[in-house]
Amino acid sequence: MLVDEVLEKVLDRVVPSFEESRGVARVVERVLRALDGASHELGADVVAEVEGSFAKDTWLADDVDVDIFLLFSPDVPLEELRRQGLLIARRAAEALGAEWEERYASHPYLTLKVEGYRVDVVPAYRVASPAEIRSPVDRTPFHTEYVRERLQEKPGLKDDIRLLKRFAKGVGVYGAEIKVEGFSGYLLELLALYYGSFKTTITAVATWRPYRTVIDMEHHYESWRDALKRFHDPLVVVDPVDPRRNVASPVSLSSMCRFIAASRAFLRAPSIDFFYPSERPGRPLGELLRSRGVVAIKTYLPKIPEDVLWGQVKRALRALSNGLERLGFTVYSSDAWASGGELVLLLELEALTLSPLEKHYGPPVYSDHNERFLKKYLREGAVAGPYVEGDRWVVIRRRKLRGVKEALAKLISAYNLGERITECLRRGYEVYVGPCAASASSNPEYRTHLASWLERRYPWLSS
Amino acid sequence: MLVDEVLEKVLDRVVPSFEESRGVARVVERVLRALDGASHELGADVVAEVEGSFAKDTWLADDVDVDIFLLFSPDVPLEELRRQGLLIARRAAEALGAEWEERYASHPYLTLKVEGYRVDVVPAYRVASPAEIRSPVDRTPFHTEYVRERLQEKPGLKDDIRLLKRFAKGVGVYGAEIKVEGFSGYLLELLALYYGSFKTTITAVATWRPYRTVIDMEHHYESWRDALKRFHDPLVVVDPVDPRRNVASPVSLSSMCRFIAASRAFLRAPSIDFFYPSERPGRPLGELLRSRGVVAIKTYLPKIPEDVLWGQVKRALRALSNGLERLGFTVYSSDAWASGGELVLLLELEALTLSPLEKHYGPPVYSDHNERFLKKYLREGAVAGPYVEGDRWVVIRRRKLRGVKEALAKLISAYNLGERITECLRRGYEVYVGPCAASASSNPEYRTHLASWLERRYPWLSS
Repeated sequence: MLVDEVLEKVLDRVVPSFEESRGVARVVERVLRALDGASHELGADVVAEVEGSFAKDTWLADDVDVDIFLLFSPDVPLEELRRQGLLIARRAAEALGAEWEERYASHPYLTLKVEGYRVDVVPAYRVASPAEIRSPVDRTPFHTEYVRERLQEKPGLKDDIRLLKRFAKGVGVYGAEIKVEGFSGYLLELLALYYGSFKTTITAVATWRPYRTVIDMEHHYESWRDALKRFHDPLVVVDPVDPRRNVASPVSLSSMCRFIAASRAFLRAPSIDFFYPSERPGRPLGELLRSRGVVAIKTYLPKIPEDVLWGQVKRALRALSNGLERLGFTVYSSDAWASGGELVLLLELEALTLSPLEKHYGPPVYSDHNERFLKKYLREGAVAGPYVEGDRWVVIRRRKLRGVKEALAKLISAYNLGERITECLRRGYEVYVGPCAASASSNPEYRTHLASWLERRYPWLSS
Repeated sequence: MLVDEVLEKVLDRVVPSFEESRGVARVVERVLRALDGASHELGADVVAEVEGSFAKDTWLADDVDVDIFLLFSPDVPLEELRRQGLLIARRAAEALGAEWEERYASHPYLTLKVEGYRVDVVPAYRVASPAEIRSPVDRTPFHTEYVRERLQEKPGLKDDIRLLKRFAKGVGVYGAEIKVEGFSGYLLELLALYYGSFKTTITAVATWRPYRTVIDMEHHYESWRDALKRFHDPLVVVDPVDPRRNVASPVSLSSMCRFIAASRAFLRAPSIDFFYPSERPGRPLGELLRSRGVVAIKTYLPKIPEDVLWGQVKRALRALSNGLERLGFTVYSSDAWASGGELVLLLELEALTLSPLEKHYGPPVYSDHNERFLKKYLREGAVAGPYVEGDRWVVIRRRKLRGVKEALAKLISAYNLGERITECLRRGYEVYVGPCAASASSNPEYRTHLASWLERRYPWLSS
């Protein structure tokens, strides 16, 4: 299919209809009025303002989260802002008869469910310039303003931004949260503004190189080298409203490279799969698990904010992988799945059982530590040695831990795998080895997740 | 036991008796006379001269090889020297009624068996100074002269040298040949001259550090740093008679470190085992082979000079180890045994069979090679992927080679393992895996060698 035909089809789906826009606008109106009422009632000096993709008209059809900021004067103390912000939001939610939930990013905010739409109400400071912000969320109004102004000059770009967001979603790199380590909506808007259209953006991304790509659209730095000196990230996009910030700092090397790979693949063979990946049935789970060295560690989670959870999960996976490698295992890949209070850590190993013997390196022969080493192995006896290889003492000895279950038990009991996850694991966990990994959770979403992790094949690549 | 008691006992065994000395002297006299007669008869302008440990009186009782050099004038062309040298030696052997064998170092020489003693007859040039030598053997007369002169000032040191040689033999580092990569007799003599006695030498060796130890007894270099700049060897002992040469250049890192380790152990717990290691029975071969990932590759050798053979054997072991590691195996150790036309290459692996799947890294996503990689795995199908990890494409795929036998067959047929050994192996080989390794040769020496390699424990360390 030709690129333009594909994009035509995608546009049909991502551009909100007049009805949908009007529906969301009405909800926003209602929430703003309720917030104004609540502030008035509480005598708070605060302005409710719409931010984010809805304010910029870059949101995707059937997929909108509205952000409303409660902007306080910088004179208000932080404690007061938090207290009043939540109070106003809760009061408004009650007035609207809306469900609400308290959440936490850099500070607390409220998520309302109004007529089926999710509306985040975020208390923040209205500061004079981004140089004066007190917390990252205070920057958001400047981002909204910057993008809106630029889009006024070029309103047609809104649809290109929608295509780009849908593309990033489709290939799995949309979102700056720790779970994804990908591209935020604001970052994608900047890319489209910088490169000029969806197609020129994808064409540019296809030529990106990690740790060498710098976009500094407001020329805050003398040269791209200067910007690279300041930001040691795979991708650098200097925030137009704040030279101290790399908008792409949450983007991991893998996410950046996946975006590059997908862009190259799209240019080679455009298809709608990049935007709306078909959930192919793939191979059955039993077949996918055959001869794979998979271990699933299942535990139960208390309520933790998403970003905290995924930060801890990634730390635990890193620590477990390192620990297993130190014990002699080879870790091919790791992943996690969490839902409804269940957490499953997934590891794929070269083998689930190690050979009976290991080669163990001691100190150099000229080291002062070698006496202890020699005494130990002369007393205990080694399978071979102690002998000298190169400049070191070496023994071949029987492994203490051969099975992955024992190895994990040791790591979980003795290592710091991150405070929160260690806590959960020490309270209780179950290990599912090999084909049993399929039964770590009875949640059908888990099985779907496990299958796609085992297959690790991008729908857009099969086309 | 105290050091001095041990040394006393060793001296009883290493210092030749009056009778033995007289016996060897008589043989030397006979050979010299026969060589003179032969030269005379052939009209050659050559002087027969005794070199080596017998000339210096630093040889070990019951363990003497006599070196006699046929020294030619530098005017004689090399071809002529070789032809005449061998001719004279052969004529002398016939006159003596001695068995002889032609051998080869940097040029050919003859080994005579006279009254049970081995006498090497080596043609060489008598040059005015070591700067003018034409081949390494021409340096030997200068070595002999240097050590003799120094020993005249300190004749008591001869017994210290004998102790040192016996020690080096006992701990397995005696000999500069490729098989051992250890300490030549001349090198040990220099060490004793430099440090002053057996005990001071061992005490000094115990403090050696590889790549930082320099002995320059004639102060040829300004500083030890200058010498280290010229010689990039673990141990540097500048030849007193030739500043361009490191006498210790044949010493491998392992041999140097084994010598250090043994010296430290001797100072901690002196024992006669360092000099005369007891051939302990150790554990039975069957037990030693249990759960060891051993492979023995047996082939048949044509007649090759020892140093050529061991150079090729070491190269083959290195190439096989690298090849196996590249295929996914982990090599713990390697060794070889050769005798009577049989060669057995020994390898110890972590495991003899690899897991069914392997993780295979492709090119970076931004590389131009990635299309070929993707096409291949999309067509063939991979167990998982192609997926992006970091900046690279990756697949999990089925291994083509899992067993060590198939892996060796591939390496032997497709890799260059050194010309001579590759030739032998391609003519035919047998692989013995695991406990079967015991039957690779029916020579009882092989079984002894195999057992001691499997045990890899130094007799002197068990004390």
